[in-house]
Amino acid sequence: MLAVWSDARTLVHALSFEAALARAEVKAGLIDVATADAIAGACDTLVLDPKDLADEIALAGTLAIPLVRHLRAAVDDTVAPTVHSGATSQDLADTVMMVQAREAQELVAVDVRRALAALAPLARKYAAVPAMGRTLLQDALPIGLGLRIAHWHAGIAQALGALDEAVAQHAMLQFGGAAGTRAGLSGKGGDVAETLAQALGLPAAPPWHARRGGVAAIATTLATLVGAIAKIARDISLLAQNGIGEVHEPQLPGRGGSSAMAHKRNPTGCQVVLAAAHRAPGLAAGVLAGMPAEQERGLGGWQAEGPALADLFLIAGGAAAAMADVAEGLEIDDAAISAHVPDDADIGESVALVAALLAPEKE
Amino acid sequence: MLAVWSDARTLVHALSFEAALARAEVKAGLIDVATADAIAGACDTLVLDPKDLADEIALAGTLAIPLVRHLRAAVDDTVAPTVHSGATSQDLADTVMMVQAREAQELVAVDVRRALAALAPLARKYAAVPAMGRTLLQDALPIGLGLRIAHWHAGIAQALGALDEAVAQHAMLQFGGAAGTRAGLSGKGGDVAETLAQALGLPAAPPWHARRGGVAAIATTLATLVGAIAKIARDISLLAQNGIGEVHEPQLPGRGGSSAMAHKRNPTGCQVVLAAAHRAPGLAAGVLAGMPAEQERGLGGWQAEGPALADLFLIAGGAAAAMADVAEGLEIDDAAISAHVPDDADIGESVALVAALLAPEKE
Amino acid sequence: MLAVWSDARTLVHALSFEAALARAEVKAGLIDVATADAIAGACDTLVLDPKDLADEIALAGTLAIPLVRHLRAAVDDTVAPTVHSGATSQDLADTVMMVQAREAQELVAVDVRRALAALAPLARKYAAVPAMGRTLLQDALPIGLGLRIAHWHAGIAQALGALDEAVAQHAMLQFGGAAGTRAGLSGKGGDVAETLAQALGLPAAPPWHARRGGVAAIATTLATLVGAIAKIARDISLLAQNGIGEVHEPQLPGRGGSSAMAHKRNPTGCQVVLAAAHRAPGLAAGVLAGMPAEQERGLGGWQAEGPALADLFLIAGGAAAAMADVAEGLEIDDAAISAHVPDDADIGESVALVAALLAPEKE
Amino acid sequence: MLAVWSDARTLVHALSFEAALARAEVKAGLIDVATADAIAGACDTLVLDPKDLADEIALAGTLAIPLVRHLRAAVDDTVAPTVHSGATSQDLADTVMMVQAREAQELVAVDVRRALAALAPLARKYAAVPAMGRTLLQDALPIGLGLRIAHWHAGIAQALGALDEAVAQHAMLQFGGAAGTRAGLSGKGGDVAETLAQALGLPAAPPWHARRGGVAAIATTLATLVGAIAKIARDISLLAQNGIGEVHEPQLPGRGGSSAMAHKRNPTGCQVVLAAAHRAPGLAAGVLAGMPAEQERGLGGWQAEGPALADLFLIAGGAAAAMADVAEGLEIDDAAISAHVPDDADIGESVALVAALLAPEKE
Repeated sequence: MLAVWSDARTLVHALSFEAALARAEVKAGLIDVATADAIAGACDTLVLDPKDLADEIALAGTLAIPLVRHLRAAVDDTVAPTVHSGATSQDLADTVMMVQAREAQELVAVDVRRALAALAPLARKYAAVPAMGRTLLQDALPIGLGLRIAHWHAGIAQALGALDEAVAQHAMLQFGGAAGTRAGLSGKGGDVAETLAQALGLPAAPPWHARRGGVAAIATTLATLVGAIAKIARDISLLAQNGIGEVHEPQLPGRGGSSAMAHKRNPTGCQVVLAAAHRAPGLAAGVLAGMPAEQERGLGGWQAEGPALADLFLIAGGAAAAMADVAEGLEIDDAAISAHVPDDADIGESVALVAALLAPEKE
Repeated sequence: MLAVWSDARTLVHALSFEAALARAEVKAGLIDVATADAIAGACDTLVLDPKDLADEIALAGTLAIPLVRHLRAAVDDTVAPTVHSGATSQDLADTVMMVQAREAQELVAVDVRRALAALAPLARKYAAVPAMGRTLLQDALPIGLGLRIAHWHAGIAQALGALDEAVAQHAMLQFGGAAGTRAGLSGKGGDVAETLAQALGLPAAPPWHARRGGVAAIATTLATLVGAIAKIARDISLLAQNGIGEVHEPQLPGRGGSSAMAHKRNPTGCQVVLAAAHRAPGLAAGVLAGMPAEQERGLGGWQAEGPALADLFLIAGGAAAAMADVAEGLEIDDAAISAHVPDDADIGESVALVAALLAPEKE
Repeated sequence: MLAVWSDARTLVHALSFEAALARAEVKAGLIDVATADAIAGACDTLVLDPKDLADEIALAGTLAIPLVRHLRAAVDDTVAPTVHSGATSQDLADTVMMVQAREAQELVAVDVRRALAALAPLARKYAAVPAMGRTLLQDALPIGLGLRIAHWHAGIAQALGALDEAVAQHAMLQFGGAAGTRAGLSGKGGDVAETLAQALGLPAAPPWHARRGGVAAIATTLATLVGAIAKIARDISLLAQNGIGEVHEPQLPGRGGSSAMAHKRNPTGCQVVLAAAHRAPGLAAGVLAGMPAEQERGLGGWQAEGPALADLFLIAGGAAAAMADVAEGLEIDDAAISAHVPDDADIGESVALVAALLAPEKE
Repeated sequence: MLAVWSDARTLVHALSFEAALARAEVKAGLIDVATADAIAGACDTLVLDPKDLADEIALAGTLAIPLVRHLRAAVDDTVAPTVHSGATSQDLADTVMMVQAREAQELVAVDVRRALAALAPLARKYAAVPAMGRTLLQDALPIGLGLRIAHWHAGIAQALGALDEAVAQHAMLQFGGAAGTRAGLSGKGGDVAETLAQALGLPAAPPWHARRGGVAAIATTLATLVGAIAKIARDISLLAQNGIGEVHEPQLPGRGGSSAMAHKRNPTGCQVVLAAAHRAPGLAAGVLAGMPAEQERGLGGWQAEGPALADLFLIAGGAAAAMADVAEGLEIDDAAISAHVPDDADIGESVALVAALLAPEKE
């Protein structure tokens, strides 16, 4: 996940954008093949010092400005003006961010699905096993242990579904040019957008440079997913307390130790998840705060989204991976659990509810 | 909207819940008609002092505890234990909140649709009219004025769609009893839930007391809607500045004045919207922060949702109403607009993009 | 606390502001006594329908506009222009908010001090009593029980100190007139400000209408105080769990019950506090987000502060009161505590640290 | 600033902590010089692969665990147990974070002071120069231009003062050992803490591992500083709009360009600042949300602080540097300004207020 959002990968995607743009403009009859070849060739062979580039980006306020300058310097003077023609800095920045969002979403989904695959059979196995239900941090009445696990499953299944939908719906090409009108493309802007989108594996769409609801949808569904994962971590860490001891994180080599107490077994997977859950709401709020963008391209709002979205994917990915590991190796202490409930515990309709909660996954 | 979230309306819904619960338990064969009649009668006739009730709620930490006590005192001793039977405080609190969310959503939608209905014809009318496009708060290149308006339209149309979907999907009955197992209902909990949900106009569903992703979805889509409305307010307030003067809020009696400068015409509708946009992200973050609920009923998280959700609906409703008024009466100064662009302004593919952006509304 | 932030009290303060302003302008030689008497008389006798006024405020976007209109209508035509002269809407709004902040701060401080007074002797009494220390939700090594309590004490003592300082430093008069220059007062603006501030019990200061750091300081120190109180609530609710049972909230009549489980003893005081802690960070973030105010008076930012600050004081007040009750009646189960530690428990330097942590209170 | 928070620098500080701890334990008579020499030697010469270490940290959930393991492996078996003796992972993590906070604070302060030094003379120079005051984004009444600048100055001066104070008060040594009692140090824990603190350039203090108010104070004052800087950026970007054109950012080589419009002059410095202001409130909220830490060491809260604090310092540093550059080169268009106000503009008491606002800097 770090690699997905690395400067290096960002640069790779940016160069792909510029090359694919040139190719798309050939297809639309706007430029000739030789020009596009020259641009694509420069994109293939350009070597930039990462540190210098970072400084140039910081100064310019956007990646596109130094990148286009370097590309133009790498081609003939006749080709140079055609580099990036029809596009603007934000087209590049937004499109690359969305390519990365799709890659990142797949990584998150793999680990969430791993957790789901581990939890579903546990929920079924323990559907009828009585365990103490706890409300407001006090013992309440018995539940089927599988019901608790089925809720964990349903929570992250639903959240993943919402994230999948948000990415599918909103992670799309941004291509509008300087003021978002696709001017300077002889009326072929729509065609260029179609071809460009296809080359980059994104849906085409009208520009959305100053409509940031799509980014907000991705950010808030990510934060919701982190919250749903953290609900599991909260429960496991509480259930693992001394004096309760009903479940434990698996012991993974190198994880769960203490630098001061060798005997201790810390719920480090849960810690990773809960730390993510402390950060996610504020990061999502930062994206929401940037929505009221000024006119055709805002000043400060969308520029704040990139780091926030990257952070959200990083912590969501970390949380999903940590929880998948925990779920796959979850140690359930049947004896401790049964010791906390009466022999004739009434678990109500827990079994039917487990079935209902797991049902959507079959669809 | 204030009325929807008032203590009085909350009490009405709570009494409806208790009465409908008794009726549903009759239908499921759990209690007899006379008992349900007695309970429903008490719900009809109960009169409580609002201030006393508020104090009791504050002390108990939840509405259900004093309410059930008052209802039980209002019926015969044989009936009293049946009041609220099978339910718990959170069932009442969550269900009432979702009834209110549906009511509130309809109010918000009315005003958003009013704004949409005002903006769509403006976008079409001005699709080909050149106006200065502005990026990073600087004049950029011309756009079709209608393109800016079409983006406004698309932003709130999409956000309203997401909110509609979140409410439709997540504003549902909560009914699980003390520990969420629907215990004590002789296996008829699912039937009671179905009947109860129908009576209250909500979808039935497995309990979700400790899965708060649905509330988070409503909260975050509300905040996103506020952001989308505020994007319009940002633009209008910038365009109305002296020295630019391209559009103006309508002059409404009693709105837009200054207590110190009689000549001044303030963008007060935009102010209402932008103030909402400053508050919404933090309110949504508060809901997200409560997701990692403890076990079968959290301590502090879900109890913080009610005020946040009410506030979000209040500010979203206020923002939508203010923007609908602004959109319906928006004054566009064609002369000022044309003075800021050259005669031969190239607006690119603005007209086609307007059509594309407005298209979804026809579907 | 609800009363402090009620519409009724806001109106009282607003009328006091207008009367005191007139008196201050007499003292500065700007208007005559009879005019001030007429204005002050109108302020004393004005009766407004709260609901009508609320509607007028919503329309105007600020209290001052309808209020000044009503006052002007209540005095002779010759006096009318002098009502509110030299002031602007925000002068009234900000000043009244700060008067309320001072009142509210005193209420919060009373309850925090009550908690401090209850905790300090407990910390000393239990300084040398071994209890299990718990880290990352796992038993770690023994501590002196008083050390945990001394940290609770130190946390809220420090946070209250920071809040006191923020209010003392920043809750001050706002008086700048239409554009913040104190124009129209014949160079006597500074004198008027001094007299007005004194009458209202606030420090005088240069205007701060577009510098919102003071409000941010109050809001963030309030949120920090809520967090510090919630640290105690977190601990108590964890220590009160079945299977641990080392401390319990006191049983207060009407508090801690369950609508479904009569036997249950819920940590409802902690619940109130923890719910506050879920809301406070987002509310503070909303205030911080409004800081980049536009020019001499922002559009949307400061208008969002009032509700956020009121909410923060309300939840801080509620949290402080709930925690004071808990602290004063905290039940400590010495037997349970000693059962969880070995007989020869090494509590390190706990006793000395308790003394060090409590020391500042003596200063 | 990136260097301050880099993994490499973190490692350097961590090794300094371990070496200084050993030396302090010599001074307290707990270990012998040879042992400390061996530990300090290992700290000097330890070479770790950054990538491997990062993986180990991610797995262990904290830096201390792999670091101590590597150090123990680097010394004799007899010395190994003494490495890190008396300390725990959080001691290392919190102390290093605070060393970095002090370094970072100095970097921020240098740039804020640079901005202050540029603004103060501008405020004085333009104190009596009339400019249009603007409220609610509408022309209001004239002000002295210097008054606006003096408010900018006062806003960041006050915010820097609050940050300085927060760092001075709260960036201190954390040293408590496994459960915060300084056990295992033969009663010499206080002495070790004193010596260790001195070696690291931090104040000594009782442990604060589970009291996070100090971190919250630093985070919220950082966010407040960003907001105060962003108020200036908001104003400058608005004043630089076409149609107003009263001030402009300086033109710096490589900054302010557009990838699509060569003629454009973008307020890129303001953009950097405003982007920071969108991120800061949510980051601060994340730190506040972590305050209710569990018992003697929380699970998830404090672990979320490090990245948030680093991000806050990074964006505050970036904002301060960008604004210092803008302030030092601010272009003020006297003609445009005077064209927007009448010849006989009344600027009230602007001059006196400028003096009052700048006064604190002399103290």
